[in-house]
Amino acid sequence: MAKVGILGATGYTGVELSLLLEKHPNAEIAFLSSEASAGQELCAVFPRLMGCDKIRGKTLQNAASCQSVSVDVVFSCLPHGASAEACLPFVDGGAQVIDLSADFRLGDASLYPKWYGKPHPKPDRLKDAVYSIPELDRANVRGAKLIANPGCYPTSVLLPLLPLVKAGAVGLGTVIADSKSGVSGAGRKPSLGTAYCEANESIHTYKPGRSHQHLGEMTQQVARLKPGGVPLIFTPHLVPMERGILTVLYVPPSAGVDAAKVRQILSEAYAGEPFVKVLSKSEGLPATGHVAHTNRCHIGVVDMPETDMVLVVSAIDNLVKGASGQAVQNWNAANSWIETLGFPA
Amino acid sequence: MAKVGILGATGYTGVELSLLLEKHPNAEIAFLSSEASAGQELCAVFPRLMGCDKIRGKTLQNAASCQSVSVDVVFSCLPHGASAEACLPFVDGGAQVIDLSADFRLGDASLYPKWYGKPHPKPDRLKDAVYSIPELDRANVRGAKLIANPGCYPTSVLLPLLPLVKAGAVGLGTVIADSKSGVSGAGRKPSLGTAYCEANESIHTYKPGRSHQHLGEMTQQVARLKPGGVPLIFTPHLVPMERGILTVLYVPPSAGVDAAKVRQILSEAYAGEPFVKVLSKSEGLPATGHVAHTNRCHIGVVDMPETDMVLVVSAIDNLVKGASGQAVQNWNAANSWIETLGFPA
Amino acid sequence: MAKVGILGATGYTGVELSLLLEKHPNAEIAFLSSEASAGQELCAVFPRLMGCDKIRGKTLQNAASCQSVSVDVVFSCLPHGASAEACLPFVDGGAQVIDLSADFRLGDASLYPKWYGKPHPKPDRLKDAVYSIPELDRANVRGAKLIANPGCYPTSVLLPLLPLVKAGAVGLGTVIADSKSGVSGAGRKPSLGTAYCEANESIHTYKPGRSHQHLGEMTQQVARLKPGGVPLIFTPHLVPMERGILTVLYVPPSAGVDAAKVRQILSEAYAGEPFVKVLSKSEGLPATGHVAHTNRCHIGVVDMPETDMVLVVSAIDNLVKGASGQAVQNWNAANSWIETLGFPA
Amino acid sequence: MAKVGILGATGYTGVELSLLLEKHPNAEIAFLSSEASAGQELCAVFPRLMGCDKIRGKTLQNAASCQSVSVDVVFSCLPHGASAEACLPFVDGGAQVIDLSADFRLGDASLYPKWYGKPHPKPDRLKDAVYSIPELDRANVRGAKLIANPGCYPTSVLLPLLPLVKAGAVGLGTVIADSKSGVSGAGRKPSLGTAYCEANESIHTYKPGRSHQHLGEMTQQVARLKPGGVPLIFTPHLVPMERGILTVLYVPPSAGVDAAKVRQILSEAYAGEPFVKVLSKSEGLPATGHVAHTNRCHIGVVDMPETDMVLVVSAIDNLVKGASGQAVQNWNAANSWIETLGFPA
Repeated sequence: MAKVGILGATGYTGVELSLLLEKHPNAEIAFLSSEASAGQELCAVFPRLMGCDKIRGKTLQNAASCQSVSVDVVFSCLPHGASAEACLPFVDGGAQVIDLSADFRLGDASLYPKWYGKPHPKPDRLKDAVYSIPELDRANVRGAKLIANPGCYPTSVLLPLLPLVKAGAVGLGTVIADSKSGVSGAGRKPSLGTAYCEANESIHTYKPGRSHQHLGEMTQQVARLKPGGVPLIFTPHLVPMERGILTVLYVPPSAGVDAAKVRQILSEAYAGEPFVKVLSKSEGLPATGHVAHTNRCHIGVVDMPETDMVLVVSAIDNLVKGASGQAVQNWNAANSWIETLGFPA
Repeated sequence: MAKVGILGATGYTGVELSLLLEKHPNAEIAFLSSEASAGQELCAVFPRLMGCDKIRGKTLQNAASCQSVSVDVVFSCLPHGASAEACLPFVDGGAQVIDLSADFRLGDASLYPKWYGKPHPKPDRLKDAVYSIPELDRANVRGAKLIANPGCYPTSVLLPLLPLVKAGAVGLGTVIADSKSGVSGAGRKPSLGTAYCEANESIHTYKPGRSHQHLGEMTQQVARLKPGGVPLIFTPHLVPMERGILTVLYVPPSAGVDAAKVRQILSEAYAGEPFVKVLSKSEGLPATGHVAHTNRCHIGVVDMPETDMVLVVSAIDNLVKGASGQAVQNWNAANSWIETLGFPA
Repeated sequence: MAKVGILGATGYTGVELSLLLEKHPNAEIAFLSSEASAGQELCAVFPRLMGCDKIRGKTLQNAASCQSVSVDVVFSCLPHGASAEACLPFVDGGAQVIDLSADFRLGDASLYPKWYGKPHPKPDRLKDAVYSIPELDRANVRGAKLIANPGCYPTSVLLPLLPLVKAGAVGLGTVIADSKSGVSGAGRKPSLGTAYCEANESIHTYKPGRSHQHLGEMTQQVARLKPGGVPLIFTPHLVPMERGILTVLYVPPSAGVDAAKVRQILSEAYAGEPFVKVLSKSEGLPATGHVAHTNRCHIGVVDMPETDMVLVVSAIDNLVKGASGQAVQNWNAANSWIETLGFPA
Repeated sequence: MAKVGILGATGYTGVELSLLLEKHPNAEIAFLSSEASAGQELCAVFPRLMGCDKIRGKTLQNAASCQSVSVDVVFSCLPHGASAEACLPFVDGGAQVIDLSADFRLGDASLYPKWYGKPHPKPDRLKDAVYSIPELDRANVRGAKLIANPGCYPTSVLLPLLPLVKAGAVGLGTVIADSKSGVSGAGRKPSLGTAYCEANESIHTYKPGRSHQHLGEMTQQVARLKPGGVPLIFTPHLVPMERGILTVLYVPPSAGVDAAKVRQILSEAYAGEPFVKVLSKSEGLPATGHVAHTNRCHIGVVDMPETDMVLVVSAIDNLVKGASGQAVQNWNAANSWIETLGFPA
């Protein structure tokens, strides 16, 4: 039974993670941190947890007091910048660390300021981290002590894209990822843009093209498979729903590649995967509602014989496969447990 | 004062149109038709109209009994197929007709079966109709007796796209239109896909690529400006909100064209237009909530210097600029009235 | 391991029940029935089930072909009227039956036509059924062969009300239950009233006062504890959300009873109950979001020293505690298993 | 043409009011104040105003700089406390003032601290103000210089209740007002409770019983008609929708009064009123969606012959009839203009 600490337990990913780990057969929660709500029980912050008895008894602690708690693994849901600094003492103390923030995702510290607006707090430690979408990085993550858990948008983009890059199916030209996210992706801190009367009954794009911070890790991961990378445009949208990301990928195929071939490549890449399902033609196309509250990714391929592009659609729950579920899956993978351990059947 | 008939007044576009025309200074409503609710007052079907006194007194009639009413203009919100057959007797009787259905949008009758699944009911009459987005087709629509009012998605795509095609700013390669629509676009007839518990809290794409029936009129209108047209991919989505369409256009520019040039072309094309606004960089990007319940189209251009594409975003209300508002605007334009006549200030 | 059949598996309660029973350690699903979708897999009707492997393999059968399947227990999610007729052969064949419809809830067949508009199909069999909210009817339901699972609204009303009736805390005067329900309570069959654009962004009351069919079972259950019953007004509302019922009870207390006493009565009545939580003053008041997707009921009591009424608020998920979850709980109770068996921790 | 100033133009009621007054034939907007956004144009704060040309050109000013602008009338949408202090200099300068805050609603300054937590800033000026729901207070408001515009909940409660009190139709016993409000009633300032992911898909009650600050003005207005008042319980709820209040009133009738009589009293009280409609039995019951974006109030009466209560339902748009629309209507009434002046037909 591993002693587990969660840093930043009161955000949307933090509470989702706390609930998953509460039920994980190998986990025993040692601490839940929150600066704003230290001293309160978690269920005072999230009344919907009243009745979840193991979690209920847990009192939130501030991060400082958590540093002295003996733990085997720490999950951090802290904001980038703060997360690296809070995580490293646990790494140095011998604990396994899974960081859900962006702090350890970029291997090249010189790229960090471009996307996150300031120098990386611990650039020399980036080399210690393993970036892992388990389906794609399983071999690397085994035994890892410091795991960079991917961003929600990159998960939705890379799961359908990377097997195509690897198979040489992506031709010349720009790949476009048009992504639509629920509001929980913006976090729990109140802001005008995520207020009910502002987000409701409207859709808009934000940080389109080459400006969203998640482009950094997307291009890095593509370049690891294909030196030089592929030109990538990424257009995120805010959709009036709580959770879910739908990504439509427009891919210029290499010679001889069509939708059928793309479906075949993806089906083979994810054959036997418990959490990724490539839909057959008769199964239709993904919808975020089909994967909400699960760690699953649905991927669909669109037949468009009259065009020179291939269209691939993915759907995930941004808080689960896009964050907390994937973190638990990474923990399982890193310890060579079956990756579905702790997930509801 | 023109005597106005509305065919199909109890769908979402029908009622929106009825409300607009009730307030139009040159309109006097002569009939409102509905097969399903004939004999009822309109406000029995739409209780929110109780208190709108002019409309309130109107009793719905079936289409047959409307044929004998003397009218100057007829707006049809009937489904395609039925609409052409109901409209033509009015045309032949000398009335002006504005058809909001798809029946008169395609000039080439041979294309109709591909998109609408059966032969056109009156192929020889297609030549009598004028397709009109007023901002782009103003000269043609003046004096027209039979006006094909554009589809909602084509309005959202063509308003940003056609000025670029006309200016020669669209280069080689595929243009992608990734569109997101509210649920009212699917009409008022109950169906599983538009039921609250199915449409709520989820987003999905449908008829993507080259399969949505609105592609026909989009490609036709592009080809009128550029023989041979441009390769076009169109990906519609259903979004959990009542109304609005957000379209993101990915355009491969011709040599020497960048975002600044695109913004200039669009700004000049729509200078002085009361209903189309090209946002400046400081005004941000469009959102459907910004144009809901109005006849406006907001257009934004995204600066992406690192890419080989130009990204243009448009937002309209599908029921107003995408249907009923544009129909009234077309009526105004056809009669050489100022196009804002009858719209709230 | 009990062989379980589910009649009417493709409504909202049917699928919720199927998912619960798939995970129940004592259940093995023997059949899932659906007239409309017979021959299809359940996940073709509910794509969100793709990935739930045990359920996935199940092919829906029509009710007739299910009659010959050997089962230990049948849950019926069929509509009232049809349900009784489909259930009784299984009862007669020796299976345990839990009917989620209204057919066996009223002990007096003469009341059935008033609420359900036609005579009861099998009036002589009503005596065989046990109406059970497990927390209140545990003793009766043990060993029962035919269980009438309560309605969603009655569950939300009776859980806070019956312990007060039993304790003699309800005085003279009318008890008012003002209830607010999510749209899933109206079922999955498409209708205008539950269409997205109609139900969204609006709230209204329907069948208020003494007209909703659930009044029958509410008054019956009150009268079992207090001969003559209490005058009851029930006002249901439709709220733009998928699931949940919030009931506010306005109770005229008997002499000497105040909010503190009511809280004490309810706290004692539900002490140790895993699914019912009476909130302390510091825990605030119930919200439907706090119990969504759970079998829990939260109950809050409002202190209003200046008035002559006591206000009690309850929240449940109409599809779980108000239907499928309670059915599983009843099954557990009837078999003397722990009542939380099969529910997520 | 009256020169109009609006204090606090960037809240939800402020912008609603600005739009109404922009179109009012007797109004010319002289200033729009905002502390937080001074120096910006209103449409920079509300991009949906882009295209509303008269408003668009207006630059927001801070309240201090507005004090020197010459105006004929000032509408204040400032928070209570601040509002009284900002309004009185305009009153003293000879302008008409319509205060949408709570500051001048309570005639008795000693009650202010109970509901608003601090002493009234200008208790000696309360006598100068006229509280007015125009349909009920038309005679008083004519010529008034300082008008206290009612709260949103009181408007929804008093419109159906006061004619009954006046007619002696309310008997002994407690009147219950169970009200359900959209989220915009909580204002535009970001807070956790009104964040999309918190308010969405849930309903709860808050400040129930005798604790909401709007009880003060409700009881005051009832007591003006019936010395001693009537016992009143008020239970507000937060509903996942942008706008609208549905109030269900449970009224113990006096001897001989039944639903038909109540309907008659209300119908006569509001006969000829342009903004209040008492629904006939065949017109069904109110829904907030039926009055959204209008200044109308729909009132329905429920027939419940078996009970000793009468149930009356009202629906308004909290931002229009519950705030800004009623403020304009009050302005019209105070100046003896027709009360519909400036409202869309």
